[in-house]
Amino acid sequence: MKIFLAQQNYHIGNFEANTQKILAAITEAKAGDGELIVFSELAVCGYPPRDFLDFDDFIRKSEAALDIIRQAADTIGVLVGAPSRNPDLADGKDLFNSAFLFYEGKEIGRVHKTLLPTYDVFDEYRYFEPANSWNVLEFKGHRLAVTICEDIWNLDDNPLYRETPMDRLMEQRPHVMINLSASPYSYRHPQVRQDIIRQNVACYSLPIVYVNTVGAQTELIFDGGSVAMDQHQNISLEMPYFEESLQAVTLRWNDETFAEGIQKSALSLPRITPRTFSHLEPEFNIASIHEALLLGIRDYFRKSGFTKAIIASSGGVDSALVLALACEALGAANVRALLLPSAFSSGHSVSDAEKLSQNLGNPYEIIPIAPLFEQFTESLQPIFGDLPFSVAEENLQSRIRGVLVMALSNKFGPILLNTSNKSELAVGYGTLYGDMAGALSVLGDLYKPQVYALARHINRNGEMIPENILVKAPSAELRPGQKDTDSLPDYPVLDEILYQYIERQQGPEELIALGHDSALVARVLGLVNRAEFKRAQFCPIIRVSPKAFGTGRRLPIVAKYLS
Amino acid sequence: MKIFLAQQNYHIGNFEANTQKILAAITEAKAGDGELIVFSELAVCGYPPRDFLDFDDFIRKSEAALDIIRQAADTIGVLVGAPSRNPDLADGKDLFNSAFLFYEGKEIGRVHKTLLPTYDVFDEYRYFEPANSWNVLEFKGHRLAVTICEDIWNLDDNPLYRETPMDRLMEQRPHVMINLSASPYSYRHPQVRQDIIRQNVACYSLPIVYVNTVGAQTELIFDGGSVAMDQHQNISLEMPYFEESLQAVTLRWNDETFAEGIQKSALSLPRITPRTFSHLEPEFNIASIHEALLLGIRDYFRKSGFTKAIIASSGGVDSALVLALACEALGAANVRALLLPSAFSSGHSVSDAEKLSQNLGNPYEIIPIAPLFEQFTESLQPIFGDLPFSVAEENLQSRIRGVLVMALSNKFGPILLNTSNKSELAVGYGTLYGDMAGALSVLGDLYKPQVYALARHINRNGEMIPENILVKAPSAELRPGQKDTDSLPDYPVLDEILYQYIERQQGPEELIALGHDSALVARVLGLVNRAEFKRAQFCPIIRVSPKAFGTGRRLPIVAKYLS
Repeated sequence: MKIFLAQQNYHIGNFEANTQKILAAITEAKAGDGELIVFSELAVCGYPPRDFLDFDDFIRKSEAALDIIRQAADTIGVLVGAPSRNPDLADGKDLFNSAFLFYEGKEIGRVHKTLLPTYDVFDEYRYFEPANSWNVLEFKGHRLAVTICEDIWNLDDNPLYRETPMDRLMEQRPHVMINLSASPYSYRHPQVRQDIIRQNVACYSLPIVYVNTVGAQTELIFDGGSVAMDQHQNISLEMPYFEESLQAVTLRWNDETFAEGIQKSALSLPRITPRTFSHLEPEFNIASIHEALLLGIRDYFRKSGFTKAIIASSGGVDSALVLALACEALGAANVRALLLPSAFSSGHSVSDAEKLSQNLGNPYEIIPIAPLFEQFTESLQPIFGDLPFSVAEENLQSRIRGVLVMALSNKFGPILLNTSNKSELAVGYGTLYGDMAGALSVLGDLYKPQVYALARHINRNGEMIPENILVKAPSAELRPGQKDTDSLPDYPVLDEILYQYIERQQGPEELIALGHDSALVARVLGLVNRAEFKRAQFCPIIRVSPKAFGTGRRLPIVAKYLS
Repeated sequence: MKIFLAQQNYHIGNFEANTQKILAAITEAKAGDGELIVFSELAVCGYPPRDFLDFDDFIRKSEAALDIIRQAADTIGVLVGAPSRNPDLADGKDLFNSAFLFYEGKEIGRVHKTLLPTYDVFDEYRYFEPANSWNVLEFKGHRLAVTICEDIWNLDDNPLYRETPMDRLMEQRPHVMINLSASPYSYRHPQVRQDIIRQNVACYSLPIVYVNTVGAQTELIFDGGSVAMDQHQNISLEMPYFEESLQAVTLRWNDETFAEGIQKSALSLPRITPRTFSHLEPEFNIASIHEALLLGIRDYFRKSGFTKAIIASSGGVDSALVLALACEALGAANVRALLLPSAFSSGHSVSDAEKLSQNLGNPYEIIPIAPLFEQFTESLQPIFGDLPFSVAEENLQSRIRGVLVMALSNKFGPILLNTSNKSELAVGYGTLYGDMAGALSVLGDLYKPQVYALARHINRNGEMIPENILVKAPSAELRPGQKDTDSLPDYPVLDEILYQYIERQQGPEELIALGHDSALVARVLGLVNRAEFKRAQFCPIIRVSPKAFGTGRRLPIVAKYLS
């Protein structure tokens, strides 16, 4: 059977655009003699629709779009993801997360998702009732075992769920597994995902067609990488990462192919679950992180209807990297750098930032903040009196910069990109409404060593980010001679503790057992937990790790735990 | 049996303080000849612990606290809520949301929560495995049907769940229902909650002991109101709202009492589910909203270790109301008002704000922002040139104010309270990092008419908020002669559309059917959805309605739906 895999980038709630994109792929697949075309999970409305699912109007619009798609499925089978209503109004949630099979203008099958991820960034049980019956879909004499994303992740070693949909479907002797996914990127996930697909093939001895979505949905990056694999675990088709693609695979089977495979095989593959992470390695998959961030920036702007960005360029490595990424994603002419030196800025801050923009070719402007700082000092003098310079004056400078970049944003329309990194956000080393301002955080899921590794990667074909930016000691430059290490532990030690605490949920006992100083552990974890109120007001962060700050990490603000 | 109900205010993650509080109540109940004392849901760790539950260290600390409580349960039975580990590591989530029964120093029973609310502000399926077996707890010859919060909310007419734990427990002929809750306040919820309790009594013909927690956990207000009801639906004990209380009730039963009630009765009570809301009525339950906000402010400060607040006092009704509430909650001497008039401020703005602080007796200071505005204009002139006054200059004033109040906050330590209301937040009528700044939003869940109603309520015993503030037309005063109605529809129409869209999830078709102009509906819903990026950076909002902005309302930021 010739099957087209449609790896597409949808716009949440934009039914018209999504439907047009789906129809175009159907037309192309028909022209290519496809018998079946498979789209990704919740393709019609875009994933994740979140609480839009609570609106009956949203579901009606999705149903209307499905109607149009159904009519286009005349001589080709179309398998597409969309929400569907739970007909049993008296029992369970109102909706299922479903896959519809259309053919000859009719719906000939529908399956519902069984395993509803409700952890990290996922909230599916908030909206959906799990499937409670399992049937293969009959199509032209073939028996399709259709599942949706998480449904194939509950192999023997995954403790999250009690049910395993493929075990149920095997009772009906399917010919092929087809999985519709919306599986987001993190730096190790493409490998983990392909391992899981291979484990399913090994387990059930069936070929698989796996279709993932692609594109950024604010903080979530869907990286594509759809695959088809035959029953011997050979990859028949691997689609690209981070871009749309429509490709076909021809899979063959007959009743003998799988007769011997009907028994579920014992697994001897290593345990891989969403809860298992490995140690932080700064260089790890830096090229894929690079692509993920570019897609994240590009889609945020494109889907919001914006084209231009503005960045406060300090001469430090974080803003330099964000500027380089923004220029690559949006075009240098669309990215405006604003240099905002203070009386405490070192001479190289301005010259490094100027050199950077000259390398990148983006426009930049300079506004010294000293006159503003002086006016604030004067205005506050009746209240501050002769109190010594303190964190108030440090934050004041950061906030003056925030006001200036936002003034340009409001006047000319460019969107402010935030430059905070994960190490700073973790310990609260940032100023609310100052350097924590911005619509989108580009580096908020990268620890400082990853920031440097990515900056070096940007320079792989020649210097874009001036070398001096990469070698000087990090400093907020908010008081004379300030260095990050005045207030923070050295980054390597800090980041190792942060990684163990944030990504791996290790507590003080475990951290001390790893050899860390108990006073330092207590200090760092206290900083992290007390900074929760700041992160609660922070913008969305492009997610590249298995545990990013934001929607995937939900902690009480008013609490007293390790703080 | 003499049962003590312990309605207590816990601090999330503060095991030491929570345990001391629980032990003190046990001591008092023993002195009062109690046979059993009942605490609320997840009392040991505080509710909601959110992702702290992912930390093994957190669970170990909870277990250590439970050990201490168990030992105190010598001559008295203690029923207390805490997380417990799922012993079946191969199947399901790691934890249960449990109630432990301790007596004679031993654990003599444990039940797990079955119905895990995963909607609005609740995320319980993110953490917990639902119960899959049901047993009454035997205690001194009595059979206790113990359930946890949501477990009693799935009567016949509630479509959210497939299971009804009390139906299972009835098979074992219990003598009494006991429910441990953490049920948060919204302005109609105390009544709905008591109706549900009554429905359970009507349905199962058993007495009930219902223990709710009390206290604010950032945005969530737990209002107490624990009750005991006999099998004839008479209230034997009703505990106060919004405060801690420890009281006893003596309930009697024998095997005959419930023999006739063993059959579940058909329900003829009105359908009440968490999804059903009624129309907005500004005056509705304004006294309880008042108490909820006071508790919300008080606990935010107390549990964070702060005592002092600062508020930007504009002479408008929103900041006046926040100032009055803060003075009542924290003491007027602890609340600092900062008056920040601009060139566009009307004369009455300052005089009204001064009069307000004189009425309230709180300290206030004035910093005119004109010199700062002029300095920003001068600093920006090389870039702005001769471009006309626009939203950039309006926001600039708002952000200068934000910088000033934050400077005082950083210098002297008071916490900035935000003054935005729900109508403004809904349509994005506010300046990020300006008037949207603050650690806690006091009025962010009140529509403008509710703000006025509460302000009038504050004045019920004499003028605190000057009358002029209550009668003048709302204005942001960011350009000459500006009125809110220049940019927004009149509040009554606006608020009715907002309420139907936000609280009741009504779409354009439904709103037009209600008689609203289709162009106005499209405009308002577009404003709401396009402002999602602003609300994503907003501080926690004290929740008083069934649908507040914040953790209970999760929408995509980059999307195109009704926008």
